[in-house]
Amino acid sequence: MFSHNKRLQYTVHVSEPNPGLANLMLEQFGGPQGELAAACRYFTQALAEEDPGRKDMLFDIATEELSHLEVIGNIVVMLNKGAKGHLAEGVEAEGEIYRSITGAGNDSHLTQLLYGGGAPLVNSAGVPWTAAYVDTIGEPTADLRSNIAAEARAKIVYERLINLTDDPGVKEALGFLMTREIAHQKSFEKALYSITPSFPPGKLPGDPRFTHTYFNLSQGPGDTRGSWNQGEQWDYVEDSDACLAVDGGSGESSADLSAPDAELTQQFAERTASDPAMDPVTGADLGSSPILDEIENKTSTKKKK
Amino acid sequence: MFSHNKRLQYTVHVSEPNPGLANLMLEQFGGPQGELAAACRYFTQALAEEDPGRKDMLFDIATEELSHLEVIGNIVVMLNKGAKGHLAEGVEAEGEIYRSITGAGNDSHLTQLLYGGGAPLVNSAGVPWTAAYVDTIGEPTADLRSNIAAEARAKIVYERLINLTDDPGVKEALGFLMTREIAHQKSFEKALYSITPSFPPGKLPGDPRFTHTYFNLSQGPGDTRGSWNQGEQWDYVEDSDACLAVDGGSGESSADLSAPDAELTQQFAERTASDPAMDPVTGADLGSSPILDEIENKTSTKKKK
Amino acid sequence: MFSHNKRLQYTVHVSEPNPGLANLMLEQFGGPQGELAAACRYFTQALAEEDPGRKDMLFDIATEELSHLEVIGNIVVMLNKGAKGHLAEGVEAEGEIYRSITGAGNDSHLTQLLYGGGAPLVNSAGVPWTAAYVDTIGEPTADLRSNIAAEARAKIVYERLINLTDDPGVKEALGFLMTREIAHQKSFEKALYSITPSFPPGKLPGDPRFTHTYFNLSQGPGDTRGSWNQGEQWDYVEDSDACLAVDGGSGESSADLSAPDAELTQQFAERTASDPAMDPVTGADLGSSPILDEIENKTSTKKKK
Amino acid sequence: MFSHNKRLQYTVHVSEPNPGLANLMLEQFGGPQGELAAACRYFTQALAEEDPGRKDMLFDIATEELSHLEVIGNIVVMLNKGAKGHLAEGVEAEGEIYRSITGAGNDSHLTQLLYGGGAPLVNSAGVPWTAAYVDTIGEPTADLRSNIAAEARAKIVYERLINLTDDPGVKEALGFLMTREIAHQKSFEKALYSITPSFPPGKLPGDPRFTHTYFNLSQGPGDTRGSWNQGEQWDYVEDSDACLAVDGGSGESSADLSAPDAELTQQFAERTASDPAMDPVTGADLGSSPILDEIENKTSTKKKK
Amino acid sequence: MFSHNKRLQYTVHVSEPNPGLANLMLEQFGGPQGELAAACRYFTQALAEEDPGRKDMLFDIATEELSHLEVIGNIVVMLNKGAKGHLAEGVEAEGEIYRSITGAGNDSHLTQLLYGGGAPLVNSAGVPWTAAYVDTIGEPTADLRSNIAAEARAKIVYERLINLTDDPGVKEALGFLMTREIAHQKSFEKALYSITPSFPPGKLPGDPRFTHTYFNLSQGPGDTRGSWNQGEQWDYVEDSDACLAVDGGSGESSADLSAPDAELTQQFAERTASDPAMDPVTGADLGSSPILDEIENKTSTKKKK
Amino acid sequence: MFSHNKRLQYTVHVSEPNPGLANLMLEQFGGPQGELAAACRYFTQALAEEDPGRKDMLFDIATEELSHLEVIGNIVVMLNKGAKGHLAEGVEAEGEIYRSITGAGNDSHLTQLLYGGGAPLVNSAGVPWTAAYVDTIGEPTADLRSNIAAEARAKIVYERLINLTDDPGVKEALGFLMTREIAHQKSFEKALYSITPSFPPGKLPGDPRFTHTYFNLSQGPGDTRGSWNQGEQWDYVEDSDACLAVDGGSGESSADLSAPDAELTQQFAERTASDPAMDPVTGADLGSSPILDEIENKTSTKKKK
Repeated sequence: MFSHNKRLQYTVHVSEPNPGLANLMLEQFGGPQGELAAACRYFTQALAEEDPGRKDMLFDIATEELSHLEVIGNIVVMLNKGAKGHLAEGVEAEGEIYRSITGAGNDSHLTQLLYGGGAPLVNSAGVPWTAAYVDTIGEPTADLRSNIAAEARAKIVYERLINLTDDPGVKEALGFLMTREIAHQKSFEKALYSITPSFPPGKLPGDPRFTHTYFNLSQGPGDTRGSWNQGEQWDYVEDSDACLAVDGGSGESSADLSAPDAELTQQFAERTASDPAMDPVTGADLGSSPILDEIENKTSTKKKK
Repeated sequence: MFSHNKRLQYTVHVSEPNPGLANLMLEQFGGPQGELAAACRYFTQALAEEDPGRKDMLFDIATEELSHLEVIGNIVVMLNKGAKGHLAEGVEAEGEIYRSITGAGNDSHLTQLLYGGGAPLVNSAGVPWTAAYVDTIGEPTADLRSNIAAEARAKIVYERLINLTDDPGVKEALGFLMTREIAHQKSFEKALYSITPSFPPGKLPGDPRFTHTYFNLSQGPGDTRGSWNQGEQWDYVEDSDACLAVDGGSGESSADLSAPDAELTQQFAERTASDPAMDPVTGADLGSSPILDEIENKTSTKKKK
Repeated sequence: MFSHNKRLQYTVHVSEPNPGLANLMLEQFGGPQGELAAACRYFTQALAEEDPGRKDMLFDIATEELSHLEVIGNIVVMLNKGAKGHLAEGVEAEGEIYRSITGAGNDSHLTQLLYGGGAPLVNSAGVPWTAAYVDTIGEPTADLRSNIAAEARAKIVYERLINLTDDPGVKEALGFLMTREIAHQKSFEKALYSITPSFPPGKLPGDPRFTHTYFNLSQGPGDTRGSWNQGEQWDYVEDSDACLAVDGGSGESSADLSAPDAELTQQFAERTASDPAMDPVTGADLGSSPILDEIENKTSTKKKK
Repeated sequence: MFSHNKRLQYTVHVSEPNPGLANLMLEQFGGPQGELAAACRYFTQALAEEDPGRKDMLFDIATEELSHLEVIGNIVVMLNKGAKGHLAEGVEAEGEIYRSITGAGNDSHLTQLLYGGGAPLVNSAGVPWTAAYVDTIGEPTADLRSNIAAEARAKIVYERLINLTDDPGVKEALGFLMTREIAHQKSFEKALYSITPSFPPGKLPGDPRFTHTYFNLSQGPGDTRGSWNQGEQWDYVEDSDACLAVDGGSGESSADLSAPDAELTQQFAERTASDPAMDPVTGADLGSSPILDEIENKTSTKKKK
Repeated sequence: MFSHNKRLQYTVHVSEPNPGLANLMLEQFGGPQGELAAACRYFTQALAEEDPGRKDMLFDIATEELSHLEVIGNIVVMLNKGAKGHLAEGVEAEGEIYRSITGAGNDSHLTQLLYGGGAPLVNSAGVPWTAAYVDTIGEPTADLRSNIAAEARAKIVYERLINLTDDPGVKEALGFLMTREIAHQKSFEKALYSITPSFPPGKLPGDPRFTHTYFNLSQGPGDTRGSWNQGEQWDYVEDSDACLAVDGGSGESSADLSAPDAELTQQFAERTASDPAMDPVTGADLGSSPILDEIENKTSTKKKK
Repeated sequence: MFSHNKRLQYTVHVSEPNPGLANLMLEQFGGPQGELAAACRYFTQALAEEDPGRKDMLFDIATEELSHLEVIGNIVVMLNKGAKGHLAEGVEAEGEIYRSITGAGNDSHLTQLLYGGGAPLVNSAGVPWTAAYVDTIGEPTADLRSNIAAEARAKIVYERLINLTDDPGVKEALGFLMTREIAHQKSFEKALYSITPSFPPGKLPGDPRFTHTYFNLSQGPGDTRGSWNQGEQWDYVEDSDACLAVDGGSGESSADLSAPDAELTQQFAERTASDPAMDPVTGADLGSSPILDEIENKTSTKKKK
């Protein structure tokens, strides 16, 4: 069960409202790398987790991410603080309000107009948050790697937001949030490497014919070798033609059909065949070709009432 | 520039059409962990990549993933091969077709009805593929970790699909595809650890007060310690109350408002205040409370024409 | 700041795993009327709320909804408990696993295959949760009405889920969750009617010419009168023609254009005009009409090499 | 069956094209609180409605909302009227067109570039309309409350749009549309309270142990009492710890598993356990730790060819 | 302005409720090729249309499509008619209801559980309708072609639905709806070919070097020639290598950067370079390699407290 | 199988970075009419195609569209080239970076902040690409028409992009891409008209009573006749009333219900009836009506503790 304290995990002070900046901060509120995504990711993993240590860790971190969602949400709300009343109370000249929410350096019209200057769960372009951002699949050696990557991404987006603002209170709170992503990544790394083995993920081994092969499918200027495709652990297939039908078969696909199925498939194919022996007049011809003008005119004349 | 050979990278043979199984295979065609997601992920990273080695590797692997999309797509099409003609040609009794596309073990109605037995870019529940699945952010120490995680997830979903079928040709082709995810993960790992340092990702360092702290925000039965929250590299904060306002401030949020902004905000607050001193009759009361019956009746009587 | 206790708000006991039922329960986990929607709705309102009483209430209820998300999530996980291991460990015959996740009364293939038997944030059809479900707009007389409606909807969906199962532990926990929606609706009703006035919502009054008018735009069999369109407070406009251009104007739309704008618009219109004086041969004609056969054949003959 | 008259329900006159303002108006055309959402909401309810009075009312209002969609659509089209020809005819210097569709106060590039200056079913951020906005569930005591809330929200968004413009023709037409939301809300209120009882919604009563309880789950500064949580009809649970396992049970979740299921679950858990007794070297360590430099170098030296 | 008559454009009679079939019918209600898509497509085109003939035609057909939406919606509602009461009234044994909404041949659980047996704007897989289905771009020679294609698709999906059912009333109403798509396609064809020229669409001519070229980019077994790539109007480029850099340039991309931009780009590239001269130990190595066991153990021993 | 050459199909040279313009170019990268949509459309059709000529053509064109995706992606990346380093390296004053990514004529904040100056699969408003854009249904006479329309749309969007820029290298590459859409449309037209017959699409004929009827459902000013609704091939139904129940029936919908189903439906209807004989006090009345003040006050006084 969750409980809540109206004090934040980190104090937020904003020097000056700035709805345009608030809009950018939404990236970490309702954006794909943001705190709702993080909280949902770890919370749902915690629910289904069989391992007591990971379950506890996932609940700890999910709860902290919810608390971070609250911190970044407060940053958004404080940056919108002044603007909110203008549109709701409508006391100014209309042109003034219009200019203030659509002016240069301010893409906040959606936030003001649709969401009333609150903190909506959208990214900085106004795209609603979707659980399609959460890539949990219920296998810890995969999910922990997903968590490590998610923390790395969130750290970078915070870094970019920090580079965008010179409000010291905003910078400091963002710095705290960014730092926690580093700490969380470290925890997830520890939990991953405490599973042995953790690679390859899952239970089935790979087919040994193809675990060490590197296919050089992009040819031409810029071909480069490095530890990712050279060294004793790699078989490097240089030529793309050698990548075709690597099983040694025909490289075709086939299915054994029952006789009635085969017949129906054939019937469909015949009914819808494009005859390569024909060079038909087409709609594009009708719409463009001067050589058809005569024919068309004659025909439409005939058809006119 | 891409080119194509109509031979596959791996030969596909299906023993018997099975639209229900085809539907499950869509998970790796148009699903979040599938091959379109993989191809798009690496292709878009390759476009923006500054490092020649990674750029080449990303194009190599993106091209292979497109070729895998083709392999899994052929599996889907072959498993649908028989069913496709039935609905299109409509030669059977209607009830028969209805039963065959909605029967037990077969959730393929969408595939047949809307997509005509083809290979649509949806997952096994019919949800259209979305670029929201692609989590690239343009920083290699994050993107390579995302790629590693994506390969791990794809490996697991292939493993599950292999566990579902006993068609030997399908099993073998899926085994190839699964194995390649292992190989790709290895390449991405090599490329990641060839960046020094690769942790923490990005350029800004963390705030040293919070990089080594673990907040025990989930209390109660099941609290567990492990390398993810204990050891010399961690400060473990046991008590949730100690997690409040860790900056030492008030834990509140505030913004410095101009006088007119403050006034408008106040005006909005007053206009919309919920008066705690009042215990109003509500809509729920109107809809339920027997003690209001008399009042209501009297009023509606008065208002009746 | 949030904190968490690994004990639930309500104990969950499941008599027998049932992945098909688990799938239906997702409706209140990641569905539009579910607990994540409720928690996000109230939490984001709380962040932007200016009124201290409502802010406190919204945080109280948001926190409880998060705790309910945990309860329904545990129901889902427990109902999937047995199935999860089968696919992951793959120890059975493949046909067996296939039948068990696609069999009659069980639409759980997505849950098992993609999400590994966890509790994903999707509805019972597998559609990912989206913040488009959250209709908060930052004006309390609207948002409280939205909350009242949301609680009413959630109550009904729980009622339907209760009607579907005879597992006593599931029924009891669902009963608790359903009941709390009733209590929350009551709180939101109190808060709404503590704002005076609360109708019409917002600040601008309606145009008195149209606040009491009812337009009978759907004619024909079944026209019915009731308090929603009759009585002294309504002007009933019987005839649809009388609903046209109720301002008394032309009912047309127009814009004053500058001369260059008007000219460009005209130029575009002329370039793309469909000439009503013409009866052209069309693509449909080409594809169907026997009377065109001769012409077509002649033309294609001429064009053949 | 619907029929249409090319005259509008309300005359639209625009003094001056303004694509930036057109873009904002889309909020009530293809936005979540807009007229398409309203029309779809009432039309689909009308189809399934069993009650003749409500069915008639829902068709009346759905038809009016379609007519409002046409009015707001005409406002959008008239505001774009001038701009449309510029991009289509391309007669100006390119820089000029670029500046005119991306300039300050004008976020209309999407409308011009992708939709050709028409009236697309997107909101002011360009997010396509989705039926996820429609929250109908087929129970009148819930759906009517949803309709009341929807009308309240639409009224507010119109109010904000009115506050944004000083074009008298636009203001007047918006005023009409806003007023009709007030009238519709009144009709839905009448229809709701004509159902007795209307609270609680649905058929199942709540569990009397929990219908009158208020859980104070958000503690700390700002705790407030009001009619929503105090008075004779409420049991106020002050302490969050008292909110745990309110059924009096363990607060844990459990499922009775068959022996084979239990064994497989255990097998999965063991295979994927994170060993708390281990403090492994991690990927983060590899990417950062100077104390590992020596080991790494030695290893990579050994592995170099 | 729209008006409505509660009589349908085509009478609907259903012999026997069938929620499973109702679910399939949703494809033409809220699916991508369905009637809402058609109505929205033509209605929004009509609003922005400059040509009076097309504007009138688009309103005529949009209005008819709305009336078709009503017909197919009534089919859905009638097919659900019996089932709706069962779940709402909950008078049966729970297992019974569960079996009836999840049984073989019936994927209607979403319709019943979430939408209460109504007619929701989703497709047969439960995916909510989205305006992303509407491909209008505001240029008539493109939009009319899109309309022609949309009518062709809708005709086919109706044909498939007709093939699925043997209820004579449903078959007859579907036959009417299917037929109207044919008639509409004919109208749109006439309107398209009444624009001269209609090909190529738009105003800018193509680059004559590339309007007649066909690039044979897919090589290998199955290469076929036909009127689409042979004949006097085509230049056929046989060899894929000849398709590279067809402008005769380097086939590379470049941008002229200012000196500071170039320097920053270089700085970013260097900071994030993957060193090809290094063969690092990776996370995959840590998780798998037996040759690292000794090193790891030693290290973790050192780091243990 | 695909292979790749790091040389482009068309050389790209950008004179000057311009992130605002890059953002607009995304329309043809990850937008609905863009190259990913085209490639996916033709590739998935090719997979399921039975006709060898069309299969080959679809692979040829799909492969070319992938190569075009690469060209437009390189345009995007080159236009972002300078900006990318600024945010990543963060060497400037923060206000400077903020202004540069949110300034007039530049809506690129999403591209920079979330995607790091890369080429994300979103449109110019930041909406992620979705497979809902792909309208393939697996019937060639419909799919080829969809392809023709898609090429026409893509041609127009390129034309608009060309009108927006004066960078000669960008203009030239866009001109190539636009031209290829014309050539592809021609190929698809040839393939369509090589199917005989191609109209009406599919196998079932229309109902001859309704294939030649035109319903004049939009009345009033602007009614226009043209080849789309007049001439010997059309029956024009002038009066909307004559469009009702064209089958000659009642225009009502009905279902034959079993007795228990009918009874349950009736029970539901009665439980939820809105009584037209009642004029209830409503929530709107409570929130607004001064005549209720006395009653409310009395009641709330009674209820106060």
